[in-house]
Amino acid sequence: MFIRNAWYVIAWDHEILDDALFSRTVLGEPVLVYRTAAGEYTALADRCCHRLAPLSRGRREGDLVRCGYHGLCFDVTGHCVEVPGQDRVPDRAFVRRYPLVVRHHWVFVWMGEPGLADPALLPDNFSCGHPDWRYRPGYLHYDTPYLLICDNLLDFSHLSFVHAATLGGSTDIARATPRVEEIDRGVRISRDIRNVPPSPYYQQFHPFDTPINRWIVYDFLLPGVLLMHSGGRPAEDADGDMTRAVQLHSCQALTPETETSTHYFFQESHRADQGNEATTEAIYDALLLAFEEDRAMINAQAANIALDPSAAMLPLPMDRAVLRFRRLLEAQMQAERSISASISR
Amino acid sequence: MFIRNAWYVIAWDHEILDDALFSRTVLGEPVLVYRTAAGEYTALADRCCHRLAPLSRGRREGDLVRCGYHGLCFDVTGHCVEVPGQDRVPDRAFVRRYPLVVRHHWVFVWMGEPGLADPALLPDNFSCGHPDWRYRPGYLHYDTPYLLICDNLLDFSHLSFVHAATLGGSTDIARATPRVEEIDRGVRISRDIRNVPPSPYYQQFHPFDTPINRWIVYDFLLPGVLLMHSGGRPAEDADGDMTRAVQLHSCQALTPETETSTHYFFQESHRADQGNEATTEAIYDALLLAFEEDRAMINAQAANIALDPSAAMLPLPMDRAVLRFRRLLEAQMQAERSISASISR
Amino acid sequence: MFIRNAWYVIAWDHEILDDALFSRTVLGEPVLVYRTAAGEYTALADRCCHRLAPLSRGRREGDLVRCGYHGLCFDVTGHCVEVPGQDRVPDRAFVRRYPLVVRHHWVFVWMGEPGLADPALLPDNFSCGHPDWRYRPGYLHYDTPYLLICDNLLDFSHLSFVHAATLGGSTDIARATPRVEEIDRGVRISRDIRNVPPSPYYQQFHPFDTPINRWIVYDFLLPGVLLMHSGGRPAEDADGDMTRAVQLHSCQALTPETETSTHYFFQESHRADQGNEATTEAIYDALLLAFEEDRAMINAQAANIALDPSAAMLPLPMDRAVLRFRRLLEAQMQAERSISASISR
Repeated sequence: MFIRNAWYVIAWDHEILDDALFSRTVLGEPVLVYRTAAGEYTALADRCCHRLAPLSRGRREGDLVRCGYHGLCFDVTGHCVEVPGQDRVPDRAFVRRYPLVVRHHWVFVWMGEPGLADPALLPDNFSCGHPDWRYRPGYLHYDTPYLLICDNLLDFSHLSFVHAATLGGSTDIARATPRVEEIDRGVRISRDIRNVPPSPYYQQFHPFDTPINRWIVYDFLLPGVLLMHSGGRPAEDADGDMTRAVQLHSCQALTPETETSTHYFFQESHRADQGNEATTEAIYDALLLAFEEDRAMINAQAANIALDPSAAMLPLPMDRAVLRFRRLLEAQMQAERSISASISR
Repeated sequence: MFIRNAWYVIAWDHEILDDALFSRTVLGEPVLVYRTAAGEYTALADRCCHRLAPLSRGRREGDLVRCGYHGLCFDVTGHCVEVPGQDRVPDRAFVRRYPLVVRHHWVFVWMGEPGLADPALLPDNFSCGHPDWRYRPGYLHYDTPYLLICDNLLDFSHLSFVHAATLGGSTDIARATPRVEEIDRGVRISRDIRNVPPSPYYQQFHPFDTPINRWIVYDFLLPGVLLMHSGGRPAEDADGDMTRAVQLHSCQALTPETETSTHYFFQESHRADQGNEATTEAIYDALLLAFEEDRAMINAQAANIALDPSAAMLPLPMDRAVLRFRRLLEAQMQAERSISASISR
Repeated sequence: MFIRNAWYVIAWDHEILDDALFSRTVLGEPVLVYRTAAGEYTALADRCCHRLAPLSRGRREGDLVRCGYHGLCFDVTGHCVEVPGQDRVPDRAFVRRYPLVVRHHWVFVWMGEPGLADPALLPDNFSCGHPDWRYRPGYLHYDTPYLLICDNLLDFSHLSFVHAATLGGSTDIARATPRVEEIDRGVRISRDIRNVPPSPYYQQFHPFDTPINRWIVYDFLLPGVLLMHSGGRPAEDADGDMTRAVQLHSCQALTPETETSTHYFFQESHRADQGNEATTEAIYDALLLAFEEDRAMINAQAANIALDPSAAMLPLPMDRAVLRFRRLLEAQMQAERSISASISR
């Protein structure tokens, strides 16, 4: 069960090569993405209406795509324009087209009612490709349900334990109770951590020799997008003095592939005027290392859940954001059921 | 759900070695095949009646087979003739015997009511081992349901797309509407394709430098056997002049292993007076290459179906033979349900 | 479905390293075992009560274990003593503790009602670590249900067939009808086999050049423990003359990991005054070879059962012990259902 009326990231735009047929499964549906000669993107069901073969195994013919099994040919809107061996194309010969928007290098598809696809609902992943910011784009595949990864991102107290040797560096993160606010279609989580040792992660691109003050402020938005400002600066520096500050902005998106697997798109940007290419690489490498730590833990958690799917979790104060987001998700699912009930009436 | 009152190919006869215990699963049932000292074949359930161990893991004792787990010994009819440690063999100690016929190197088993096993229902795979024909026997295993492979063989319009670079060579095959006739327990499909470039496949064993006329005429019979005459000759040659013709005969049989996997036995013969051993090998190699193309496409199709088993296919005129064969299969299943209802009454 | 009020072997004690967090799944439940600084063992649910992550992926803090995900900390009794970021630990923050006993190098856990855990029910695996006996400890993992392996151990007539070339050496074992007695929580099986060729297995550590008399006497106890005296001596030797006898004692325990997989702990001891280290190794190697033969057969049997789970087995006189043990198991399950019904009333 997923919400459908939402923008899901299906790819980084650099993954969609000219002339190629790109395929990725989202919410259990195979989706084909390609670009026309004019550079326009289109997203179609990657499943021929005839015998259900993936169109992505076919070939491009200009802006058309021809199925590689029996040769039906479709245009960018998903309408079949040719059936080999017959003169007339039946009206029912078409594949679903998904609304698609490319914004700041993320390719978003709308999996629900096309009429409800509203670009105003796109998350503001501004640091992807902004001249003031530098990052290296990342992608990971998870063999676990996406909600477990949302939970992980909604409670950074795990930084102190899962990432003790990498991102975390201090149990003070777990101890610093975050402020949790409900915002439109999401949750805002803010943490101020004062006078802590700099994490090894920070040390990689900025030498600190004094305790620092850290801040972590992020929005976690439906369906599963994290937008985060974070940073740190010497605790001894005067308020407002950012000369020795590390400033980061991170964009991360979780997209369910199936009920039990997930796509994970991520980047963490640093200010273009701080550091150089080596910094960009170091951040990326550190992030990847940390995300492998998350994946190992979440895989182990998922294996335990698989052994007994009825086992209850114990809600704790640290789960406030987790629980709020789950409630938001359920409310949205409920709303979608009402919409589809009223449409089918 | 499969039809049971039918001859299924379980093996090429060269697979059944002297003194060996050959096992293959058919319709979800493990079947043991072996040859007596006198050269007779027998097919028994490959599942000891005692603790269900496969008899094929046991050993031959002359024409008997002894289970390798606790030593029960069975004769060629499947009756237990010895239980170690006890004097009397219980009446219920036997394993099922399947009617078996070997015809033209194909080993057929009858999976339904033994009393209905009628050799008249065997398909005429005459070119397997006929002195006028040469071939190399082939076998492939599919991890997909057998109906998807039947569908593939029932609509050769896919030759123009799946096998564009191998067997097909021209989109004219897809455009040439075949004649489809219902015949006894099957469908006959005929295609005349005039004045087309010779396919790369043909070129491999006969150099053509002019357009050719091609013919493809095949019967596709229950439970899943293809018998095909095909060939081609220069379009410029006079009617009836076969001096420069390529003449082929192909025998192919699909046997469900389980609901989701399939055995595929195949050969394509050429006239013994055309070509030589290199021709035989070239045909086999080309066929295998093409069948790998089919398998890749059918695997992709099956993966799409697995994502949404409720997705509907769109029937098109090119599916006439596919739909007729599916109707035949359903009628046969319905008939078998009636028979077994009347037997159990 | 398993019986729960029983001691299950979870490990050899050498597997539980100092300072380590050992995890193994028993009856589908992940169990954590570790030793305190004082050398005491404890067994806890390896599943944090908070978000169900395995505690074994966390870390030791003295005798405490801290979850590696969000840092909850537990004592040896399973009570949570710290939740990072909050002052009070909720009453419901604990993980289940399992009664645990270490006896003769086997680590036993009690999976049922803790109040019923009775050390008097421990099997007498005396030869594990007794100064008069030498062995090398063994462990195998099976991907088959544990009952199929119990069946195997309850009917040694399979020695003549599965282990003809290794342990068995003679079909006389299958022909020698064993005496089967019901004992407390188990079955006792005795076989006298007179005047048979020495098995290759025996030859490995004692050269025999005459026929021997063999004895095999074992108890097979709930939930799945085999304790066996066996041996052989020249048939020509006078009654009671043990000077040329081989005397062995074997302890084997089957512990269900899940419904479809099993842990197998085993050893076969020889008298410390017979043979040397090479003998110990030879016995171990021979046993392992034979157990691989069992595993291959049981895997094949399980695959046949998976093809048709409704297929019936044919009970034979040789299955007396098998059937008695299955009845014992069912009676115990029935009794446990009555207990839990009366507890919940």
